[in-house]
Parts: sequence; structure tokens; C-alpha cells
Amino acid sequence: MKASTYPLLDAAEAAEMVLDRTPVLAVEQVTLADAPGRVLAEDVIAPASLPPFPASAVDGYAVRAADAGGTLRVLGESAAGRPLAAFVGPGTAARILTGGVVPDGADCVVMIEDVRVDGEVVTVPDHLRAGTNFHAPGADVRAGEHVLARGTQLGPAELGLVASLGLARVAVHRRPSVALMSTGDELVEAGKAAGRGQIPDSNRWALLAALLEAGAVVRLLGIAPDQPEALRELVADALAEADVLVTSGGVSVGTHDLVKPLLESLGTVHIGRVKLKPGKPFTFATLSSLPPSGEGLGRVAEARLAFGLPGFPVSSLVTFEVFVRPALRKMQGFAKVQRPTLPVRLGYDARASADRTEYQRVTLRRDGQEFVAETTGSQSSSRLMSLAGAHALVRIPPGDQGIKAGEVVDAIILALP
Amino acid sequence: MKASTYPLLDAAEAAEMVLDRTPVLAVEQVTLADAPGRVLAEDVIAPASLPPFPASAVDGYAVRAADAGGTLRVLGESAAGRPLAAFVGPGTAARILTGGVVPDGADCVVMIEDVRVDGEVVTVPDHLRAGTNFHAPGADVRAGEHVLARGTQLGPAELGLVASLGLARVAVHRRPSVALMSTGDELVEAGKAAGRGQIPDSNRWALLAALLEAGAVVRLLGIAPDQPEALRELVADALAEADVLVTSGGVSVGTHDLVKPLLESLGTVHIGRVKLKPGKPFTFATLSSLPPSGEGLGRVAEARLAFGLPGFPVSSLVTFEVFVRPALRKMQGFAKVQRPTLPVRLGYDARASADRTEYQRVTLRRDGQEFVAETTGSQSSSRLMSLAGAHALVRIPPGDQGIKAGEVVDAIILALP
Repeated sequence: MKASTYPLLDAAEAAEMVLDRTPVLAVEQVTLADAPGRVLAEDVIAPASLPPFPASAVDGYAVRAADAGGTLRVLGESAAGRPLAAFVGPGTAARILTGGVVPDGADCVVMIEDVRVDGEVVTVPDHLRAGTNFHAPGADVRAGEHVLARGTQLGPAELGLVASLGLARVAVHRRPSVALMSTGDELVEAGKAAGRGQIPDSNRWALLAALLEAGAVVRLLGIAPDQPEALRELVADALAEADVLVTSGGVSVGTHDLVKPLLESLGTVHIGRVKLKPGKPFTFATLSSLPPSGEGLGRVAEARLAFGLPGFPVSSLVTFEVFVRPALRKMQGFAKVQRPTLPVRLGYDARASADRTEYQRVTLRRDGQEFVAETTGSQSSSRLMSLAGAHALVRIPPGDQGIKAGEVVDAIILALP
Repeated sequence: MKASTYPLLDAAEAAEMVLDRTPVLAVEQVTLADAPGRVLAEDVIAPASLPPFPASAVDGYAVRAADAGGTLRVLGESAAGRPLAAFVGPGTAARILTGGVVPDGADCVVMIEDVRVDGEVVTVPDHLRAGTNFHAPGADVRAGEHVLARGTQLGPAELGLVASLGLARVAVHRRPSVALMSTGDELVEAGKAAGRGQIPDSNRWALLAALLEAGAVVRLLGIAPDQPEALRELVADALAEADVLVTSGGVSVGTHDLVKPLLESLGTVHIGRVKLKPGKPFTFATLSSLPPSGEGLGRVAEARLAFGLPGFPVSSLVTFEVFVRPALRKMQGFAKVQRPTLPVRLGYDARASADRTEYQRVTLRRDGQEFVAETTGSQSSSRLMSLAGAHALVRIPPGDQGIKAGEVVDAIILALP
């Protein structure tokens, strides 16, 4: 057993190294049903104007504003999808339903509540204004308009826009496929009896939830086998179909650690230690060549990434936030890979670590127009309770200064209260 | 064609009526693999302490603090999952790896970087402090501790906690199953040629994305058939397996509207119009009795809900936000059913609607320590561009006051910038 020979890298520099080596994944065409949550790979330009015709916003009568106060002959009805083939000339009107085409000749729509109907004639109010109660062609979107930018996630309004333009498929980036594995001789499956010195594997489930939230497709590899050969085979097989390998545990310097030697044998380890608390043993490698069993699958040879996360639960989730989540978002083409931040007032004295950037977990509480950040208690790397229910992460720079209660800092928002 | 006979309800009152009639769905046990994003139906109490044994936080040597400065005989190694059956008495030490059990007798761990090793003896520093570099039993969670509350969503840390307690299954509420249908004679499928007066159906895709984000399981029913009998059969069949029916379009007062009569025939329509802009024709019904084809499925007879959303795209998404999303979250057992709010400074004069609460769509921009809300432009009910990329909704009370630029209001946050 000896101390690690990997250089201790600055946390921000390490995060940049990871993103620099992260590819944006290939583009695929998906149907609208498969598109929710995906990220546009191309700008969306409107092929035509919306609405394509003057569409009534209400139920009522399409008339000429010049006929205000008149009693008008009703020519027929223009319902949604059933336009009326008639011209609304002086002294005439067309019954119209919401979404119906405003017939040629008419320049406004009068609401049903505002007219008096008597058989086949209708009396309209004394004051009418042209252009009211219908959506003019191109009022919502003009033909050729730049509607959505690549890098935009397809939420409800964005997907609705794509569909309203008549597009049945949309170009998005592939979702990253991630093989997930826990390592550690102390691990047993949750639900199985744990002997002396054993604990249930929790990182796999925590990381599964984190990966799904980040948009990944996850393949669960379970707990790593003890034997280096069996482990190497399992990982090589998984990497034939995965873009990313995520492991937890087995990256500190002990004699039984398997992950760093494995990654060294499969590719290039760029990061082996970072000045980060928690998360110092974070490991990152690129695996550039496809293993033999991956040939012939027609997969574009994009760089594959391996993240060796530390074994302590909080360390594994904090390094996921700092390094893995931004990388997974870059792979999907997100314009914005980092979480949003908000200014918050510290409600406690945050002591700094001497030589590592510390990510402290806080809850947020509204106080008038601002948020006050309170610590979630002991920030031990094994204490998941410090992260459960946390609203934000506060980054404390290394040194002997810390940040005093009352100061305002930008917090990384996990979930608003 | 005549004006609606449904009373115009206050928007907040209508939202309360919906939630009052929304059931919390039944409890089911799911595996950890199926648990991400689900909502706890029961409190989680720790059956045992975590860690269950004194676990080393580092690689190094487990010693007695009283032996500071000494040269100690190494008894063997305590690795993670492989405890050392030895007692660390005076003058002795145990090699220990991260996660390993601190052997009886030892009261601190010295990091590998801080010792000098010479064969089977190790020299430790002059100053040692008992209790350092290991996690004491119960330091993370005490047996019997209230760890997570019912109503909590299982995110990464929460699911990790559940697993770390050794639980292999967890009690959560069922996800709501939602049948989704668009209505309107003007609708064609996106990708198909649209004739005069026709438009592609966009609401189904926008609502699909919104429903999935809200945690629903969605069954797509397509565009409703023209004929009342065919429509009734389709809906009755779908409701045999769905908790919720969501339709868009066909709820205003025109002669071709099908949804209100359908819902009246299947159950009780509680809401037919609301003082909401956009979204006045919003319709809500409860469907209390299972249709014939739904018998014998063993489903608990929970109340089923029907939401008739307006046909204009922005109206359908705004009424989804105001009425449907909170209901779907209540069904899943969420402690918090509403979106978070943030104080924002209005960057524009928000004019009010005379008699309806208006939900205006805004983008947010950081300005020092605060957010400034800017309008997304024309707030027409058909203009999805007013909602695409919007960060928040600002609620403008009815009347002739409006809200002036510079005033601070609480905005409903859709996505932080």
C-alpha cells in the first residue's frame, strides 16, 4: 500500500478537462411520441405561417366592421375544419365557431354573447373594430421565422410548436447509454443479510436515479466481481454497447482497488485525484478503441468515457454533480450543461477545507425577497442525510477564510423549496 | 348555438374544487430499480444504525491515540468487507483500507500519507486524536431515526438512503394512468397534408410532454372521432384502465362541441367555465362509476377525473399547469403539489384582464441579486411562442389596475434560466 501517484488537480480545471473530452452524440430522427425531453440537434425554421388562415378566437359571427349596428343576413356557418365557401359582403354575416376560417370579406368576429339572433338574421353592436376576435395569418409564427434553436430541450411548448408546424419527426441527439457498476468487497445487495463489515450497496440506486434525471439510458451491471479478469470481461462487454461507464468505489489507493488498473488497461486515465471535498479520489478516463466484441455494430466510433466515482455515498453523488451530469448533458446537445444558480444569504459560518474546494449541502428558506441557506448538518462523506432534501450546493473555495454567515453567494440549485 | 349555461367560476376556487375531488392513488411496493422519481407512501424509519460498525474513512493504520509517536507492530489488515479478527492493544496497529472495520481497541485511524512503514512495523505521528478518520457507528443514521417522510420524491440521495438501510422494496403511490385525446374537426396528424381550414394537431404532443414531466403514464387515444357514439365507446374503453381522461378542444359553446355532452353523460361536470385567461372554457368532471367493460379488473374504485382543456395551444398548457399538474401530483402523494415561486421584478407594465385572472408568460434575467421578468411578447392564446422558452408564469389579478413595471411579484417557476 502506497500513496497515490496521480497528481492532485484543481476541481474546476478537472471539470473542464472532462467536458473537453466529452463528445456530442450522433443525431437521430425521432417521432413526436419519442421526442419529449430530447434536445434539438438542428434549428427549427417555420416552413409556413401560423395560423395558416384567419382563425376565429371565439364562437360568434364574422362580419364587416363597417356594418356595426346593422341587422345582417346569415350566409351559413364556418366551423373548425369546415370552412364556408361564401363572401361576406355588405349586409351579410357568417356564423363562425372557434377555430373556424374567417370567410373572405369579413374583417372582424362578434362574440355570440354580443349579438341578437332572429331566425336567419343577426343584429350586431353599434361599435365594431376590424381585426378583433380572430388570429390573423402569421400572427403566431411567420413563414421562415427562426422558431427554436438547436440545444433546446423539447418541453411541452417546444414540442407543441414542432407539431404545429406539421413536422412529424424531429432531429435530436442520441441519449447517452451508461453502464453502471458498484465495486467493493463490503457490498451486499439491499435486502440480503449483511455480515460483519458488510453494508448494502446504495450507490448503484442513488446513481441510477441521478443518471435517469440527467437523461441517460442505464444498464445495471450490479456489484463488480472480485476477480480482475472477470471484471475486465464484464466491463469490456458492457462498453461494446455503452457510451459511458460509471463505477463507484474502488478508486482510493488501497491494495484491493480494482478500478484504476482496469481503466488504465482499457484506455487513458486523465484524472486520478482532485482537490474536491467530498470526492478527492474521483477518476476519469477515455476509452478510445472499441473492444473486439463491439465491432460490426455500426456504432459511430465516438469517444467513450469512464467515470470512477468514490465509494462514499455523498462523494459519489457530489462528483456526479460536478463531473458526470454536465458531461451527460453535453453528450445530449444541451445548450446549457450546468445547473442554474441563485444568490442566497448564508445562514451559517461555512468553514473552508485547507486545500480542497468543498461542496456543502444546504436547504433554502424564503426570508422576504431572499433565500437563506442553512447547512444540512454534518457534512461527512458517508452521511446521505446531508444530501437528502438539500435544495442547493454551496461551493466553498479552499483556504483558511471560509464564508461568514450573512454573506451572499451563488448557490447551485438542485430543487427549489 | 347559444351562450354557455355553465357558471363562470373564480380561477382559484376552481383549482381548489379540482384538488378537493382528486384522490391520492393506491400504494404499491416497487423494487429499487423501479423507484426513481416515485413518491414515498410511508415514512421511512431506520431499522438499524448507519454505519453499523466503525468504518475507516481513509487508507492507513488503525491505532490507539495513546500510542502517538510510537513505532507499532502491524497485526494484519482490515479491508472493506474483510474485517481483521484482532484486538489493537498498546504498541500495535492494524493496516486498514477505506470502508474497513476499525478493529476493537483502536480509537483512531492515521492516514497512509502520515506514517513511516518499515517491514512489519509502522511509526505514527507525535499528535493523534481519538475519533479521527473513521465514521462512528450511528454517526450517519441512528436506529429508529425518522429518515424520510411520506410525500417525499425518491431522488438520488433519498433512494440511496433507502438502499443503505437494506430495504429492497419501497412503498410508493401508483402513478396516474392518463388517456389523452385531441378533439376538433380541423385537426390532421402532423406530417399529413392540411387542407383549407385544417391544422396539425399539436396539443396532443405538448400535453404528452407535460403529462410525462408530471409523472403520468400516458395512453395516446389520437384525434377523437366525429361521431358521438364512436367517441363515447372509445372513451369508455380507455377509462376502464385509466385514472384520468385529458382532452383538448371541443369545450367551447359551438354546435360541434362534443366534450361537455360526453362528460355529462359519463359523470358529473363540476366546472364548465372559469375566470381565467387564457383558458376560460376549462371543463372538469368526475366519473364515479366504472363503465361496464371496466368491471372485474380488480381495480380499486377510485374516483376518475376528466379534464376538458381548451383547444388553443396556450390555453391547453396554461390550464394544464393550473389544474391538471397539481391534481396529478396529489394522486402520486407528493407533499408539495404546486410549482415553486420566486420573487421577480416586473420589467414591463402588465395590463390586467377586466374579469379574469391572467397567467402571463415571462422570461427571467438576472440583474445583480434579483430577477427581472420580461414578457414573451404577444400573449395570444394560440401563440405557443409565448410559452416556448418561458421561465415563469406571472399571475395578474383581474380588474383595471394591472401591475406596473418595477413592482416585485411572486412568479411561478417553470425552469430557472
